[in-house]
Amino acid sequence: MARPLELHPDRLFPADPTTRDIARALYAEIADQPIVSPHGHTDPVWFADNAAWTDATSLLLAPDHYLYRMLYSQGIALDDLAIPRLSGVPATDPRAAWALFAQNYTLFRGTPSRMWLDHVFADVFGFDVALEASTADLYFDTITQKLATPEFRPRALFERFRIDFLATTEGAHDDLAAHARIRESGWQGRVVTTYRPDGVIDVEHEAFGPAMARFAELTGEDVYSWTGYLAAHRKRRAAFRAAGATATDHGHPTAATANLSAVEAEALFAKVTRGDWTPADAELFRAQMLTEMAAMSVEDGMVMQIHPGSSRNHNAGLFATHGRDKGADIPTRTDYVHALQPLLDRFGTSTTLSIILFTLDESTYARELAPLAGHYPCLKLGPSWWFHDSPEGMRRFREQTTETAGFYNTVGFNDDTRAFLSIPARHDVARRVDCGFLARLVAEHRIADWEAAELAYDLTTGLVRRAYRIDEKTVG
Amino acid sequence: MARPLELHPDRLFPADPTTRDIARALYAEIADQPIVSPHGHTDPVWFADNAAWTDATSLLLAPDHYLYRMLYSQGIALDDLAIPRLSGVPATDPRAAWALFAQNYTLFRGTPSRMWLDHVFADVFGFDVALEASTADLYFDTITQKLATPEFRPRALFERFRIDFLATTEGAHDDLAAHARIRESGWQGRVVTTYRPDGVIDVEHEAFGPAMARFAELTGEDVYSWTGYLAAHRKRRAAFRAAGATATDHGHPTAATANLSAVEAEALFAKVTRGDWTPADAELFRAQMLTEMAAMSVEDGMVMQIHPGSSRNHNAGLFATHGRDKGADIPTRTDYVHALQPLLDRFGTSTTLSIILFTLDESTYARELAPLAGHYPCLKLGPSWWFHDSPEGMRRFREQTTETAGFYNTVGFNDDTRAFLSIPARHDVARRVDCGFLARLVAEHRIADWEAAELAYDLTTGLVRRAYRIDEKTVG
Amino acid sequence: MARPLELHPDRLFPADPTTRDIARALYAEIADQPIVSPHGHTDPVWFADNAAWTDATSLLLAPDHYLYRMLYSQGIALDDLAIPRLSGVPATDPRAAWALFAQNYTLFRGTPSRMWLDHVFADVFGFDVALEASTADLYFDTITQKLATPEFRPRALFERFRIDFLATTEGAHDDLAAHARIRESGWQGRVVTTYRPDGVIDVEHEAFGPAMARFAELTGEDVYSWTGYLAAHRKRRAAFRAAGATATDHGHPTAATANLSAVEAEALFAKVTRGDWTPADAELFRAQMLTEMAAMSVEDGMVMQIHPGSSRNHNAGLFATHGRDKGADIPTRTDYVHALQPLLDRFGTSTTLSIILFTLDESTYARELAPLAGHYPCLKLGPSWWFHDSPEGMRRFREQTTETAGFYNTVGFNDDTRAFLSIPARHDVARRVDCGFLARLVAEHRIADWEAAELAYDLTTGLVRRAYRIDEKTVG
Repeated sequence: MARPLELHPDRLFPADPTTRDIARALYAEIADQPIVSPHGHTDPVWFADNAAWTDATSLLLAPDHYLYRMLYSQGIALDDLAIPRLSGVPATDPRAAWALFAQNYTLFRGTPSRMWLDHVFADVFGFDVALEASTADLYFDTITQKLATPEFRPRALFERFRIDFLATTEGAHDDLAAHARIRESGWQGRVVTTYRPDGVIDVEHEAFGPAMARFAELTGEDVYSWTGYLAAHRKRRAAFRAAGATATDHGHPTAATANLSAVEAEALFAKVTRGDWTPADAELFRAQMLTEMAAMSVEDGMVMQIHPGSSRNHNAGLFATHGRDKGADIPTRTDYVHALQPLLDRFGTSTTLSIILFTLDESTYARELAPLAGHYPCLKLGPSWWFHDSPEGMRRFREQTTETAGFYNTVGFNDDTRAFLSIPARHDVARRVDCGFLARLVAEHRIADWEAAELAYDLTTGLVRRAYRIDEKTVG
Repeated sequence: MARPLELHPDRLFPADPTTRDIARALYAEIADQPIVSPHGHTDPVWFADNAAWTDATSLLLAPDHYLYRMLYSQGIALDDLAIPRLSGVPATDPRAAWALFAQNYTLFRGTPSRMWLDHVFADVFGFDVALEASTADLYFDTITQKLATPEFRPRALFERFRIDFLATTEGAHDDLAAHARIRESGWQGRVVTTYRPDGVIDVEHEAFGPAMARFAELTGEDVYSWTGYLAAHRKRRAAFRAAGATATDHGHPTAATANLSAVEAEALFAKVTRGDWTPADAELFRAQMLTEMAAMSVEDGMVMQIHPGSSRNHNAGLFATHGRDKGADIPTRTDYVHALQPLLDRFGTSTTLSIILFTLDESTYARELAPLAGHYPCLKLGPSWWFHDSPEGMRRFREQTTETAGFYNTVGFNDDTRAFLSIPARHDVARRVDCGFLARLVAEHRIADWEAAELAYDLTTGLVRRAYRIDEKTVG
Repeated sequence: MARPLELHPDRLFPADPTTRDIARALYAEIADQPIVSPHGHTDPVWFADNAAWTDATSLLLAPDHYLYRMLYSQGIALDDLAIPRLSGVPATDPRAAWALFAQNYTLFRGTPSRMWLDHVFADVFGFDVALEASTADLYFDTITQKLATPEFRPRALFERFRIDFLATTEGAHDDLAAHARIRESGWQGRVVTTYRPDGVIDVEHEAFGPAMARFAELTGEDVYSWTGYLAAHRKRRAAFRAAGATATDHGHPTAATANLSAVEAEALFAKVTRGDWTPADAELFRAQMLTEMAAMSVEDGMVMQIHPGSSRNHNAGLFATHGRDKGADIPTRTDYVHALQPLLDRFGTSTTLSIILFTLDESTYARELAPLAGHYPCLKLGPSWWFHDSPEGMRRFREQTTETAGFYNTVGFNDDTRAFLSIPARHDVARRVDCGFLARLVAEHRIADWEAAELAYDLTTGLVRRAYRIDEKTVG
């Protein structure tokens, strides 16, 4: 007998009955708000082509490093989970990979992945039995069948999920063809891009050379001269804005910024593009480029997102066989106070610039980030991110930032995911946790119930629209 | 219709009914204890002259960087809030500034400022409607009228607030004239000073030169010789003790201490006073001076307070137009284990020296500060400070220090404020949060109810009197 | 009238009635599980000789630096507590020392020491009045009398405590004679050793020279050559395995590892054993030896434990008079991401190697340790350690690691103690706190009740047996 699968209506609300009642009432008012997803990694090709996905393994397991890293951590071989190697996809039966996952689903107890998946299983696919060894085939077959139906095509799900706004992320050297096809198709779903220029900024990235070549081709600029390089960024930013982008994104190893003179910046650019740079040069160039991007944001109004602090590809052995983004990125200590100083020396008093700061180092919430955002007009705090996109992570974020930065220097929720089917689950978790936090403030008579209701709305859709300037832009 | 303003009698107590009952009972026993305020920044001139304050903006808003930094962070210009520039006070109507504040009072939801202000509005001024755009004028007028009455003069409020002991903070180069006038006036309020020599220790401070000149003048010592400089400190410490001081205070960028030989210290002093110092020299001199101050405390019994870890004047643009203390001080990571080693190598086993450590880096609570205070006889932990002087901050302080340092290596509450009218509110928040924490320990059967009652008393007035040696000193 | 001493059956469970009911039910199922203690510091001589302990002071107070550091922190002289100096045991009456402790027992309110001791007093000795000044003699006399009875001999208590497995810790240069006597005695208690080679690895330890001499003597190897030194480690590891060891333990100041070539390693070894090393050489040698120990673990299957991050002997004055391990070890910031990289570059993809990581720096839980353990097959997370072996510490551990690493990358509880009588109390605290944490997840509908029951069992005995490979080894 398989165990039942149920999503309890009170899940994630605090257990205390008074607080739970308040949380439930707050949630009821905002549960049906549309989804505004200003930062994520879904593939625009899905919405451009609207082709059917094929099976559970290739849709849900193989692309999701949150899942297979946990299985890998317990000694399960990635080949057995059908995870692609650099040399190609292993010849693993997708059904067998799924069964192995199902068998080990207990590993996810207490993790957000488990909550998101159960939500997908119950709400998106309608399962009423839990995933386990005995139901692996039922799951695999049912999912395969449903994915073949029109109701499970990307656009149909987008509409069913009531997504109001969905931002994808593309490199500066991406031609945005999928986004163009979406717009040309006449479909009304609002899928926009985000300008992520890391590929042409990070000279330590193994594909920097080809990215620059493509950057040159797309812009017609001499991207190997400092002037041409900056002009190319301006052209591409304009092209991204035309494809609906309201924001840029920067995933640097640290939050370092620099404020070099034009002459120094040009000399540094020459050095790093010549290829005779040290790691310190590469870091300084990334740092200077954050400030250059801020300068362009002051001009064109794009919101900057800074996502620092991940030590990428930590597992050298795995990187050699499987490449990047395989669950081996590990956060490190991150400094913001000194790192952001050069950029802030230049733009700190701007009221038009808007920079959203993220962190993987929670020790900075109360110590650095909340005081910075609670002072500088140009700084806002992004939601708890990646490993911290979780009930406990969200709770710590609110507990450690609200008293200094308030709610209004935060920007609502980001799902930051390529797992499209889990987007409603992820937003639902955030809404529930925020309502639980607000309910505690009400139960402790720290805010009034009507204030909590206003805040619940703002945390769900009000702040995100304002922070990402979504109402100030329309697509095309 | 304006919203009502009420201070709920159970505010800040945990929502669970069992725990709340315990908290309420503990609080009832200590709620009426007098206020002992051993560290703060009120102006002694208020109590010396006992002149009336004039209006809400100049009393409550313009001097309080906790408030205007939040408004500034949302793009509101400081000029519109009547915040003084270096070039003078802007010609902003105080009533208009107050209205702007009232309109944006929602920004403070969930912050301690909001709780403190509501307490001031309800308890000190008797408002029963909340501050909002529609009540801005009512507030402004009522406050202006009340401030003109004798009941709202500084001394009357001091007595109404039932303040038993209030320490202000003066620089080593302050003549303590206001304190002298207080004593000479025959008024019985116990307002004492605290020796804060940073101005004549921090050679990086822009006013170091004039401070030294005044230091020389007040002491008659050759403060430009190492011997004379130390003698001047001794003289001023004696003068401060005569004005009731029981403590010194040191607000350095880091917690670094040094233990140089007399010859090295003298050479360093010569270098920094000659003006040909590097930032490292300035830091080493501050470090050495903490150890010198500890040596003098061993002699004269003054309690040392160390308040490290703030990166001052982070916003260069704002510093240029508005100067220091404008809400742009941002905490940084702080090390204590290595930083305090030199001082502790010299005085670590002393049982007469007492140093109270504060932090803006909460990651040090459990890792460094509690283990240090739970071992060294000369070290105690100051309460959660500045950005962490808040319900969540206090809760984290207790949760992260108590198990290692116990309660008896802590020193009760500091309000650390220049916002005189909020002093009762601040102490009330601390008492409520401590009672809530103790109530949880009782509800979880970790301590007995009678122990919690003893602790509630100790955390309120017992520990602070002992730690600041208040009963060992009388004024004059 | 002395206060009563009672251990409340619901102690440490959350106060919310729903959550408490769940916690109580979970705990009821695992409360009687035997104790598996894979890491600790009890003296094997106790179990070899089975001699009676003599009195409360020498058994409970004098060896326990958790206790006397707190008394010392409040200005009580160690001599008055009968704590040995390097020059000998002070001539303090054990009864007087005990009375001083009893008088100051209030200092421990809110600390784990208090809970553990009360458990020992009530459960092991049967007291029903609390320890305080008025009961000091009653306690001292009763304990002395009971210790003289057969029921209080070490082996009898071992059996009464229902200990299934107890690991002690011995240096590489220990002859394991006590363990041999235990095995030869025919007693069935499973007391095994753990290989702790720090003494022959840390060239900065004051006894490195004698330890190496003894290491040579025990192995017959030329331990002053790199080859002989490594061979000696292999021999001793085999001897430890023969004495039941399943694990090694490494208590380095940092988590640094190195991956030198054989030639570099040999040159470094020559330098440090010649004695002309710098602190950096000493650190690099410790770092390289962690990697060498990992290589041997890949060969022989011993589980590695890494316990980094303590700044030992911080109090120079106390170290001079009293030596090491006197409560003056203070945690420092610890990096894992960069520190472990060299070792992981070599063995990161191994599925046979198992390394259990501990920390004294809680800021690394969510940021570094959970992501590392949630990815690498060879890494697991040890329980909250030392200062963090406490209810709040355990709660933070679960809250900050579970969402990323899950439960199954953790290894159950370690008591890590030399205070033998407190072992049941310590395991009981861990079980209660874990059940409380699981109960919250159930009450918030994040896991099902039957899952929590499985997890409660796994956290109590399932994971520890697997992680320490206890079922893969038998003694002898």
